[in-house]
Amino acid sequence: MIWYKEKNEDDIIISTRIRLARNLLKYPFPNAMTEQQVKTALEEAESQILSTPLANNFKAYRIGDMNAVEKRMLYEKHLISPDMLNKTNGAVMISQDDSTSIMLMEEDHLRIQVILGGFKLDEAYKTADETDNILDECMQFAFDEELGYLTSCPSNTGTGLRASVMMHLPALTLTDNISKIITSASKLGITVRGLYGEGSKAYGSLYQISNQVTLGLSENEIIEKVKNIVNQIATHEKDVRQKLRENNKDVLEDKLFRAYGTLRYARKISSQEAKSLISDVILGENMGIIQTVEQNLIELMILTEPAFVESIYQKTLTPDERDIKRAELIRQVFDK
Amino acid sequence: MIWYKEKNEDDIIISTRIRLARNLLKYPFPNAMTEQQVKTALEEAESQILSTPLANNFKAYRIGDMNAVEKRMLYEKHLISPDMLNKTNGAVMISQDDSTSIMLMEEDHLRIQVILGGFKLDEAYKTADETDNILDECMQFAFDEELGYLTSCPSNTGTGLRASVMMHLPALTLTDNISKIITSASKLGITVRGLYGEGSKAYGSLYQISNQVTLGLSENEIIEKVKNIVNQIATHEKDVRQKLRENNKDVLEDKLFRAYGTLRYARKISSQEAKSLISDVILGENMGIIQTVEQNLIELMILTEPAFVESIYQKTLTPDERDIKRAELIRQVFDK
Repeated sequence: MIWYKEKNEDDIIISTRIRLARNLLKYPFPNAMTEQQVKTALEEAESQILSTPLANNFKAYRIGDMNAVEKRMLYEKHLISPDMLNKTNGAVMISQDDSTSIMLMEEDHLRIQVILGGFKLDEAYKTADETDNILDECMQFAFDEELGYLTSCPSNTGTGLRASVMMHLPALTLTDNISKIITSASKLGITVRGLYGEGSKAYGSLYQISNQVTLGLSENEIIEKVKNIVNQIATHEKDVRQKLRENNKDVLEDKLFRAYGTLRYARKISSQEAKSLISDVILGENMGIIQTVEQNLIELMILTEPAFVESIYQKTLTPDERDIKRAELIRQVFDK
Repeated sequence: MIWYKEKNEDDIIISTRIRLARNLLKYPFPNAMTEQQVKTALEEAESQILSTPLANNFKAYRIGDMNAVEKRMLYEKHLISPDMLNKTNGAVMISQDDSTSIMLMEEDHLRIQVILGGFKLDEAYKTADETDNILDECMQFAFDEELGYLTSCPSNTGTGLRASVMMHLPALTLTDNISKIITSASKLGITVRGLYGEGSKAYGSLYQISNQVTLGLSENEIIEKVKNIVNQIATHEKDVRQKLRENNKDVLEDKLFRAYGTLRYARKISSQEAKSLISDVILGENMGIIQTVEQNLIELMILTEPAFVESIYQKTLTPDERDIKRAELIRQVFDK
C-alpha cells in the first residue's frame, strides 16, 4: 500500500524512506554521459532488471513517454524525485504495492527507494537491501574497497544510503523551535528538509529527517542514528504540544478551529495554504481539540497537490481553476 | 422598537438618525459652565421636561449613576454619544421604544435624537420636530433671528439639525471606491463617518452619511440633500456589487465564505474583526451567495459589542475573555 494510505498510529512520524544510490561500472556518471550512452545504459539496465525475479512485481515507466500530470503525480506520491521530472531519457520501475521504486538515469544510474508509512526504517532497509542484492547479481556496480559505492555526488559515496523519516511537526513549527532543531541536528550529521526533500519548503509542517553523509558509518549505524534523532525530535514535539495546551490553549484552539472553518468553507485555495491549514487541523485532531473526519488528512495533503487535482477532474486546469477545484475537493471531505 | 431590531427590507440603508442641537438661553454653553451651573441647569431641564406630556413616555438616566457597562451599552445602542460617556453631570432621557433620546449637558444643553431602522428621514424628523416643539413650550432656547439656533460649536448653528443615514457599503469598501465617495460627498457638504460618528472608523463597512453644516438651508432642504446623496451612494454600491459578481465572482465568493467559516469556528474574536467578518457574510446574503441564519446580522454586530457581551455574561471580563465569549455568542447564532 502506498505510504500515505497506511493507517498510521503515530501522530508525528508519517513515513520512512530508504534510498540506495548505485552506479554501473561500465558507464561514466549520468552527468558525464552522452545522450546516446544514457539511452544505451537505460535499455541495458531495464532489460537486466526485467530478467530478474523483480520483473513479476515491477512496472517500468519511461519519463519521456508520460504526460506532465502523470509524471507530476509520481512526484507527488514521492515515487520519483523532483529532478526526475525533467529527465526525458530517464525511467522508473515501481513495485505493485507502490512501496519500492527504482529510478534509472537520475543523478546516479540507479536509485533504489523503499517508502513505507510509519516509522519502519529496519523494514524499509531490508526490502531495499534485498532489491539491491538482486540487482547486484545481474549488473556490476561501481564499488571501491576503501570508499564503498561510488556516486555522482561525493555526499552519497560510501553506503549510498539515505535513511529518511517524514515527520509532522506543527507545534515545533508554530513556536519557531524548528530552526533550533535544524541547527542542532546538522551538527550531528542529520539534515532536516521540507516535504519534497532537498531545497523544498516544509509546507504543512512536514519535514524529512535524514543522514547527511553515507561514508564512514555502516548501514546499521546510519539507521540507528536517524532513529535516535527522530525519537528525540518526536519527544520534543510532544513536549511543546503539552506546553501549548497548558499556556496557550485559547490562542491555539482559535487558530486550529479557524483553519478548520476555512477548509470547510473556502472556495479557492492554493496547495500551500491547504497544506498549512490541514496541518493545523491534524494538530487539532491529535490534541483532541477538533473531532473531524474519517479521511486520513496527511493523505488529503497529497490528494490536493496540483497533479492529483487535475487527474481527478481529468483535464488541464489553470492555477486559478485548480485552486477552486481543490477547495471543492476539500469541502467534500469535510462535509461528510 | 430599537433601530437595529427593525426588520429592514433594504440591504444597504440600515438606519436613520435626526439630531437637533438646542441650548438654554439663560446659561452659557456647557463648555463655559461651572460644575454648579451644570448641576442646576440639568435639574431644571429635567424637571421641565418631566412636566410635559413627554414624562409618560421617557425615562431619565443620570450618567454619573450608571456603571461602565450600562453607559457603554447606551452608547453601543447609539442612544448616547461617545462624548456623553464621560459627562458625569450629564443625563439622558430615553423614550420607551428606544427611538428618541434627549441628551442633557453634552456639547449642547440639549440634543434631541430620533433613530429609526431603515430609510425614514421624514418620519424621524417629524418625531424630532414634535419633541422639539414640546420642549420649546417649557424652556427658552437660545435663538437668533438671523443665525437660527445658537450652539456650542458653530458648525451646528442654524437649524441645529443633523440628518444622518447609516449605510452598509461592503462592496464600495472592498473595492476601495469609498474614499472617492467621501471626497466627492464632502464637496457637496456631506460628511461620511464611521459607525459611531465623528472620528470613529467604519468597522464592518458601516458608514454614517450626514450634512456638514446646518446654516443656510432649511430643515427640509438639508433632509432632501442627504436623501439625494444616500440614494446615489446606494446605487453606486449596487453597481459595484453587480460588477464584482460579473468580474470577480470566484474571489468574492471565497472571501465571503471564508468569513462565514471563521465566524462559525473561531474561538476568540475581537469586536472589530467580528464586525468585518459579519459584514462580509451580510454581503454574501444580500448577493444570494450565502444562505445563513434568521438572526439579523446588523443586530449581531451590535450584540457583540464589548458592553453587550459583558451584560449577557453578567460579569466584568478581561478583553481576552470578552473575545472568547464573543466567539461563543457568534457560534451559537451560526450553529442554529
